[in-house]
Amino acid sequence: MSQKSTPTILVTNDDGINAPGIHALVNAMKEIGNVVVVAPDKPQSGMGHAITINEPLRLKKTDLYGDVEAYACSGTPVDCVKLAKDKILHKKPELCVSGINHGSNSSINIIYSGTMSAAVEAAIEGIPAIGFSLLDYRYEADFSGSAHYAKLIAQQMLKSGAPNGILLNVNIPALKVNELKGVKICRQAVAKWEEEYDERNDPRGLKYFWLTGKFVNYDKGEDTDERALSNGYISVVPVQFDMTAHHAISFFNKAWSIQQDEMHNAAGIEDIQTEKSVHDLG
Amino acid sequence: MSQKSTPTILVTNDDGINAPGIHALVNAMKEIGNVVVVAPDKPQSGMGHAITINEPLRLKKTDLYGDVEAYACSGTPVDCVKLAKDKILHKKPELCVSGINHGSNSSINIIYSGTMSAAVEAAIEGIPAIGFSLLDYRYEADFSGSAHYAKLIAQQMLKSGAPNGILLNVNIPALKVNELKGVKICRQAVAKWEEEYDERNDPRGLKYFWLTGKFVNYDKGEDTDERALSNGYISVVPVQFDMTAHHAISFFNKAWSIQQDEMHNAAGIEDIQTEKSVHDLG
Repeated sequence: MSQKSTPTILVTNDDGINAPGIHALVNAMKEIGNVVVVAPDKPQSGMGHAITINEPLRLKKTDLYGDVEAYACSGTPVDCVKLAKDKILHKKPELCVSGINHGSNSSINIIYSGTMSAAVEAAIEGIPAIGFSLLDYRYEADFSGSAHYAKLIAQQMLKSGAPNGILLNVNIPALKVNELKGVKICRQAVAKWEEEYDERNDPRGLKYFWLTGKFVNYDKGEDTDERALSNGYISVVPVQFDMTAHHAISFFNKAWSIQQDEMHNAAGIEDIQTEKSVHDLG
Repeated sequence: MSQKSTPTILVTNDDGINAPGIHALVNAMKEIGNVVVVAPDKPQSGMGHAITINEPLRLKKTDLYGDVEAYACSGTPVDCVKLAKDKILHKKPELCVSGINHGSNSSINIIYSGTMSAAVEAAIEGIPAIGFSLLDYRYEADFSGSAHYAKLIAQQMLKSGAPNGILLNVNIPALKVNELKGVKICRQAVAKWEEEYDERNDPRGLKYFWLTGKFVNYDKGEDTDERALSNGYISVVPVQFDMTAHHAISFFNKAWSIQQDEMHNAAGIEDIQTEKSVHDLG
């Protein structure tokens, strides 16, 4: 591969720069691009799309990855992507990959996931982006199968590109590479966590709560990520950051229109509005 | 209103339980329901959909709101909603409202916003939910117009309900109640923050970075939240937490299908797959 055609690939994660999952991903990406690593200096699981606004950020260069340029960042996964673009790369990389996460980010988990939020942030910046997660949360998980497919999927993404504003949420069953059945393009399953907080008393007798719960899949669809994963396939969900429920706009326009006068009059401003603008919900 | 028909309304925010914005919202909701407040004990702006998993949570009852049951929570806005449902209400409230945020959560800001993430979490739990934000980030902002409309919009939501899994992102211009032009149902504008980190040196000569930047709206559409707000309307965006880019599924099925053999063969597992399942991307 010539220097000119070699893509720059930004690698980040939410388990922290020392996690085995990001080591596996860096090694896989080194085979296809010029890798730059900017990842949190400590675990940031469950950080969602958090950004750091009330304190300053630090970047510390590290030789953790040998000849690969790498920085530990004091912020969240989203901070890492923002800082990498503005202060390290000074341009958009050809690809941003996040992970490989220790544990699933399928279905609703995308919304809590720092791994996926880093990829979403890259997509907002117009960078093709993929989040990779292995369905094994253990530190000593075997990343060989997931790293193998991460490389293939990243190559595909570099080749095919993606529609504007679309990134990928890739989840990989905890199977050996020869047990993985292939790749399926899926939708996010309708599933959620049923929480039950574990209530305890501290030595002073004061209550505290640990988050716990079980994951429940309500979705019987054949085309969901949960279905693909349970059948041994890698799930690839195209993801967007436009959260508008476009199909619901007409519902609210219809359901609320008869009360529009009322809502408006309640504000006591009949006189300054024309009939048209009072009814102008659409 | 009889006790039986009075809805239970959970109120939370991300600016913390002491913020003027949540005080304004509690007062507005008291006029239409039985209010329970569970809000962060400190500011949590920019927390996105963060949850607390590595440390336990605390709840502290407070008389900040007189006869309204209120708790300060040590966690994030999302933690507040989860804990409120499981440990305080022991049932789903009829409505969850979050805010009134000090500052805009229009367009892409929804994704960074703790205010909106609390509302998203409620919607995941099947609770009708609304996030309210005022386009004035100052502590001493005037919440009278926004509180007035928050009450009307909450009443509308209780009356009309919402399609499954849909919540509302409501942003309110910083205008007096008689200057607000009414309500528009909108889509999220295509806009983003152009970041530039402010680079400084600490007294020891070590670099640190402050997040800064400017908001840029790329969207000329008439139906966006940014357009409505700039014209003096309150923007109401129906929001979903299914992040699947459904329209992009066919793109990837098509763009990747010719390489599917290749991806699969690269894993060295030709022998265990039938022709059908190797090609089974759909």
